[in-house]
Amino acid sequence: MFFEDFDPIRLENQLSGNRFRVIYRLSGDEAAARNRAADICAEQTVEFPVHLLPSGVIREKIVGCIEQFERQNETSWLATISYADEIAAGEFTQFLNIIFGNISIKQEIQVVAIQPSREILEGLSGPRFGIAGIRQLVYIPKRPPLFTALKPMGLSAQNLAHLAEQFAEGGIDIIKDDHGLSDQCFAPFEERVSRCADAVRKVNTRTGRKTIYVPNITSPIDLFFDRAVRAKELGAGGLMVTPGLVGWDALRRLAQMQLGLPIIAHPAFIGSYAINPQGISCRVLFGTLMRLAGADATIFPNYGGRFPLSQEDCREIVTASREKLGTMPAIFPCPAGGMELKNIRGMVQNYGNDMLVLIGSGLFSHSENLIENCRTFLEEIEQSCSSTD
Amino acid sequence: MFFEDFDPIRLENQLSGNRFRVIYRLSGDEAAARNRAADICAEQTVEFPVHLLPSGVIREKIVGCIEQFERQNETSWLATISYADEIAAGEFTQFLNIIFGNISIKQEIQVVAIQPSREILEGLSGPRFGIAGIRQLVYIPKRPPLFTALKPMGLSAQNLAHLAEQFAEGGIDIIKDDHGLSDQCFAPFEERVSRCADAVRKVNTRTGRKTIYVPNITSPIDLFFDRAVRAKELGAGGLMVTPGLVGWDALRRLAQMQLGLPIIAHPAFIGSYAINPQGISCRVLFGTLMRLAGADATIFPNYGGRFPLSQEDCREIVTASREKLGTMPAIFPCPAGGMELKNIRGMVQNYGNDMLVLIGSGLFSHSENLIENCRTFLEEIEQSCSSTD
Repeated sequence: MFFEDFDPIRLENQLSGNRFRVIYRLSGDEAAARNRAADICAEQTVEFPVHLLPSGVIREKIVGCIEQFERQNETSWLATISYADEIAAGEFTQFLNIIFGNISIKQEIQVVAIQPSREILEGLSGPRFGIAGIRQLVYIPKRPPLFTALKPMGLSAQNLAHLAEQFAEGGIDIIKDDHGLSDQCFAPFEERVSRCADAVRKVNTRTGRKTIYVPNITSPIDLFFDRAVRAKELGAGGLMVTPGLVGWDALRRLAQMQLGLPIIAHPAFIGSYAINPQGISCRVLFGTLMRLAGADATIFPNYGGRFPLSQEDCREIVTASREKLGTMPAIFPCPAGGMELKNIRGMVQNYGNDMLVLIGSGLFSHSENLIENCRTFLEEIEQSCSSTD
Repeated sequence: MFFEDFDPIRLENQLSGNRFRVIYRLSGDEAAARNRAADICAEQTVEFPVHLLPSGVIREKIVGCIEQFERQNETSWLATISYADEIAAGEFTQFLNIIFGNISIKQEIQVVAIQPSREILEGLSGPRFGIAGIRQLVYIPKRPPLFTALKPMGLSAQNLAHLAEQFAEGGIDIIKDDHGLSDQCFAPFEERVSRCADAVRKVNTRTGRKTIYVPNITSPIDLFFDRAVRAKELGAGGLMVTPGLVGWDALRRLAQMQLGLPIIAHPAFIGSYAINPQGISCRVLFGTLMRLAGADATIFPNYGGRFPLSQEDCREIVTASREKLGTMPAIFPCPAGGMELKNIRGMVQNYGNDMLVLIGSGLFSHSENLIENCRTFLEEIEQSCSSTD
């Protein structure tokens, strides 16, 4: 008896009874999958042999609980496991830890759904703008906004601002930094943001449009929040963040700070979770988690481009971006990664109007006139929308 | 011509010529692997079709460069790709992005080595204590220190402090929080750290030993650095961090702050990179990256326990923890995850003395006398060491 001083009634009184659920896809035969589900319940909580725990409340309420176990197909099973809200401690970091901390190092487990309790959802501030907020900012009420990236790396801040000017002139709605632009000596953060924001503002004044410039603020954590504030001062219309690099919780905290700018999340560095057999499904990783963390738009690698996601994966991400999730607003899915003019119609047909169409180098490879290319892509979007009305 | 205003001489003058290297393992036939290597060079830098780039410096020095390409075995190839230091911008976040940002979403790529330039190594403060520093703190000059975790979740701060007292009494050298203990209502951070640090200090005063208590400070990013400082004030002898939850850069920044406490890194949430065919090798993930980020000790799931790593994987992690890496000190590998008394001899034979032997529930399952169990494990460590002398 190791825990004579443990007071079960005290613990019992500290638990609200609220629980959140995670659905795991488990591979193997039924017995192996059932064992694995039971293992997850302990591994993600007490990390302790259940038979050595004091009987009662720790075994029954701190250890995860298998709520449902069902066959998915010939070789996989779905286990719904619930956890007491209190073990997540109101922290997004610890919430992630319970969902997939230690078991990220175990085979044949994939997180396929997260169902937070109402209380956990209320504890996360979530997206501040979502689809409706971004549409209002860029003043595009119906069609998919057209979205592009300033590139390639190696250009100066002045060169990038010149590109931004042409994109704005061509009618692009949202112009972001390429996600690899941070604070390189050839295009330093402060100068780049200042010049690009100015360039876009100048064109907006002339055209009456509301194009926004969205700098990449992904950076060392001690600079990150300052870059966000500085970007706003310099005229940014949104902020791009790669949570895989700066941390999931940095994204959450940024959204919570309410700087008054929408946040666009980039998927770099986290792909391994989603494209391997073991990990976190595309839907949860690029959809649910980005939204819970507070992204207003989530960039994902569309099928048929440079990345290996399937059409089904992509549809699932889009669903997760827009389905009911407590009172959190729907967010923009942004299919991307080698999209060209010929892909636009299919994207609109597949995903509907509530997405950002992110075209990177496709705008350059279409013809040698960048401004005309932007207009051609915009027309294609408009025509694709009206043909699906 | 999209980039008439680009000034190649200006960019050329901004590049030092220093480059860092990454070795990728690529699967498939030779032609496919060579194509993939070329693709990585562009995907991780310019994200732009190379033929549309201005000729000259961007193509030659900003785009990654294949330095070596060789067969590893029947179905895999090793490509060494170098990148200009300047594109990492002196930022650990951007360094990670270049190594594996977008290609984390592409199949058949595994990062198997990182070779930073001397300049990048110097820009990272790295581990402050390492093996020698931790040995000095706990006053264990030769044998592997014995390391354990306070658990299970659900105990009160008082209960955990009582366990800490018994562990210290039994002679454990390093006592950490279980990595799931954050700030739960049943064992709040402040109370837990205060009580556990006091308990260990009290025993140390009596025994003359130098056992340290290492709380888990993994937490929301806006609380993280404050928790580190507070833990020190309350008497912590080290800090545990899970970079997968709070961010790689939070670990780096913590090490840079020089709080005067060693940092122990926990592998939760990042396993998917290492146990899938695509991702980052165990060696790089749990060894090189943890060390570059500044961890003084790295916990990893040892083979033969609850986790699926192979003996070879584990040896590689140990090698990466201790091999030459600029002037960075060697750090303690901490094999863990279901280790029991019977595993100790093999661990010492495999890894030598310069490791932390992390025993969790094994200390409980051995017999019902916790203090005696600690002594038994310590004796086994001492005997295993002398038998390998």
